[in-house]
Amino acid sequence: MHFKAALPLRSGASVRAYDLSYETYGKLNADKSNAVLICHALNASHHVAGVYPGQTKSEGWWDSMVGPGKPVDTDRFFVIGVNNLGSCFGSTGPMHVNPDSADGHVYGADFPVVTVEDWVHSQALLLDRLGIQTLAAVMGGSLGGMQATAWTLLYPGRLLRAVVVASAPNLTAENIAFNEVARRAIVTDPDFHGGHFYRHGVVPKRGLRIARMIGHITYLSDDVMNAKFGRELRRAVAQTGTSPDYRYITQEVEFQIESYLRYQGDKFADYFDANTYLLITRTLDYFDPARAYGGNLSQALARATCKFLLVSFVTDWRFAPARSRELVKALLDNQRDVSYAEIDAPHGHDAFLMDDPRYHGVVRAYFAALAAEVGL
Amino acid sequence: MHFKAALPLRSGASVRAYDLSYETYGKLNADKSNAVLICHALNASHHVAGVYPGQTKSEGWWDSMVGPGKPVDTDRFFVIGVNNLGSCFGSTGPMHVNPDSADGHVYGADFPVVTVEDWVHSQALLLDRLGIQTLAAVMGGSLGGMQATAWTLLYPGRLLRAVVVASAPNLTAENIAFNEVARRAIVTDPDFHGGHFYRHGVVPKRGLRIARMIGHITYLSDDVMNAKFGRELRRAVAQTGTSPDYRYITQEVEFQIESYLRYQGDKFADYFDANTYLLITRTLDYFDPARAYGGNLSQALARATCKFLLVSFVTDWRFAPARSRELVKALLDNQRDVSYAEIDAPHGHDAFLMDDPRYHGVVRAYFAALAAEVGL
Repeated sequence: MHFKAALPLRSGASVRAYDLSYETYGKLNADKSNAVLICHALNASHHVAGVYPGQTKSEGWWDSMVGPGKPVDTDRFFVIGVNNLGSCFGSTGPMHVNPDSADGHVYGADFPVVTVEDWVHSQALLLDRLGIQTLAAVMGGSLGGMQATAWTLLYPGRLLRAVVVASAPNLTAENIAFNEVARRAIVTDPDFHGGHFYRHGVVPKRGLRIARMIGHITYLSDDVMNAKFGRELRRAVAQTGTSPDYRYITQEVEFQIESYLRYQGDKFADYFDANTYLLITRTLDYFDPARAYGGNLSQALARATCKFLLVSFVTDWRFAPARSRELVKALLDNQRDVSYAEIDAPHGHDAFLMDDPRYHGVVRAYFAALAAEVGL
Repeated sequence: MHFKAALPLRSGASVRAYDLSYETYGKLNADKSNAVLICHALNASHHVAGVYPGQTKSEGWWDSMVGPGKPVDTDRFFVIGVNNLGSCFGSTGPMHVNPDSADGHVYGADFPVVTVEDWVHSQALLLDRLGIQTLAAVMGGSLGGMQATAWTLLYPGRLLRAVVVASAPNLTAENIAFNEVARRAIVTDPDFHGGHFYRHGVVPKRGLRIARMIGHITYLSDDVMNAKFGRELRRAVAQTGTSPDYRYITQEVEFQIESYLRYQGDKFADYFDANTYLLITRTLDYFDPARAYGGNLSQALARATCKFLLVSFVTDWRFAPARSRELVKALLDNQRDVSYAEIDAPHGHDAFLMDDPRYHGVVRAYFAALAAEVGL
C-alpha cells in the first residue's frame, strides 16, 4: 500500500512517501468487527502465516499461531500482518531510494529513526485505507508486544483487546547493552562505510553475523542450550556419534553450539539489512511509555481501556516474567481487565514462537472469548 | 623464572622453553608451610596485590583480598601470584618470539593451546624451583577456581586446602557460546590476519572491543546494571543532570550503559593480546574434569583429598551458584571436608573481585582456621 502523505515521526523527522507491505488471512466480515492486527519483532515481516505456493520452507513466522483452526483462527478472524517501516522485507526502509537524494542513492544510514509509536501510527493509517475502524485485537510478541501496548495508549478507542506476549514495558540496561554490542559489531565492520555500504557494493556481513550470534544466545535459555547442544563436540556428531578427544583449536569450530551459532549468523547476514538492524534495535531501546510520566507505568497505562492478555515464559531471561508482571500490575492499578499466563516452557524468549500446548491453549481460549464477545 | 626444559601439553604439543612471571607477598616461613598460590582468571596477571612504587592505579587485581591484615593475610601467609602461560603480562605467550620460527617471528596464532591442567603443571614446576613442596592453599576465582580445582586432582598431596570462588566444574553451552561470539569478533576482524597481525603492524582492536563488551555484560548482573546505569541517557549526566529528549541516533552513544561498555572495550583493546584472548577462552571451554569419567563429577573428584571452601554469588549468572553446588555435591559424595558459602551480593560474577564483608568474612575465617591448622 502506497502512502503519498509524509509520515511525521517522533524524532521530528518524517518519511516523505512510503509503502507498507502487508498480508491478510481470512475474510473481513460485513460489519468489519473481526480484524486482528499482528505486529512483528526484530527480524520478521508481514508474512505471518501460511506458505507461498511452490516455495518450500515459506511458512509465515507465526504459522503455528495463526491460520484456519489455529489459536488465532482465520476461519473466524481477519488477520493482518504489516511489515514495519525501516524493515527490509518490502516496506520502505534503508534499502529504498531516498527521495531527498539528488543522485538517486538509497537511504542507507539516512533513513530516520522510527519508534514503536511511529509504527503504530503507520499501521493505523493502513487500517484507515482498509476501512477498518476498530480492531478486535492487536497481538504481538517481544517487540511486537510493545507495538500492541502502544496501540492501547495511542488508539484506545480502536481496539477491544491487546495480546502482549514475552514483552516488557521497556528495555533494561542489560537489554540495551546487548543491542549496543550488536550495533558496534555492525558499525565497526569496515564494510559498513558509515551505513552507506550499498554504494560500495559490499555488505557488513562480519558485523551482521556477530550481531545475530549475540541475539541468538539471548533468545534461548541456558537450559535449552544445554539440552540441545550441551558440551557436544561437532566432530563427534558428524563422525562417530561418540565423543573423541579435543582438537585443541581456537579459530575453528570445536563444539556443536559454535557450529549452530555460526550457521545462524551466516544465514542472517545473507538476508538482513545492516541499517535495519541498527534501526530496529534502537526502536527497542527507545520504547518506554512510562518515560513521559517520570517512570510511573501505572500513570502511563491509564489511557489504555481495552482488555489485555499477557503471556510470559519462565525461562525467558531477555524479557523475563517480572517485566510482564510490571505491565500486569500497572494495568490492575487502573482496574483494567487483565488475564496473565506465565508458561513454564524451557525455550527462553524463543518460546513465544513455539507451539507449547499450554501457551496456545491460553491464546485459543482468549480469542474464543473474543469471538463470542464480538458475535462471530 | 626461566624454564629450559620443554613443557609437554595436554594437546600433545609442547612449549620448548619458557618464562613464568610471578610475584610473592609476605615471607615464606622456615618449614615452608605457609605458601598460598593465587590463580588468575582471563585478563589478570601475577600482580595479585599491592602497588608498584610511583605508579598510581597499580593495585593488584585482588588487592582487597590479599595483603597485610586482609582475608588472605600476608603477615602470616606467603602468597604467590603467577602469570599463566599464553597470557600477555610477562609469561611466555603469543607475543613472544617463537623459537621454531626461522625468521624470528613471534608465536602469534602458533602458540599452542594450553589447558588448565597445563597451567597447573607449570605452576607446580615453579613451586619446585621455589623449594615449596606443599601449599597451605590454592585459591582462585572464576577460571582461577578451575585451576584450584585441577590442583586438587593433579597434585592432591601438595596442598592442604582449595578455595574455589565463583567457579564451575565446566562451561555450559551458553558460556561456550559467549566465548565463541567474542572469538569470532576477533578472528573476523580484518586486522587479525589469521592471528599473525604483529608482522602487519596492526592490532584487531575492533574485535577485541566487541569481545570485551560481551564479556562485561556477562560479568555484571542485570540488577547491578540497572542500579548503575538503568536507562539513563549519557547527555543527561554530562549536561543538566535531568533527562532530556532522545536524540534518535543509531551509531552514536545515547545511553550511559553504551558509553560504559565502549570505554571498557577501548581500554581493553589497548592492552590485551588478541591471541591470548582466543587461547584463554578456549582454556575455559576445554576444562571439564568429569569428561574422562563419562560426565560423572563425583568420580572425577574422588582423587581430591584436601579441604575445600567454595563460594558463589546469587546474582552470578555466568557461573551460577548451581554450578558451585555441583562441585559441593560431588565432593560430599566423596566424604570430603567442604565449606560452602552462597553470598547474596548484587554484583554478578564480578562479585568475586569485590569486598563484600560477608564474602571476605568467610574467606578470612577459613584462612584463620588454616593458619591454626598449620601452626602459624
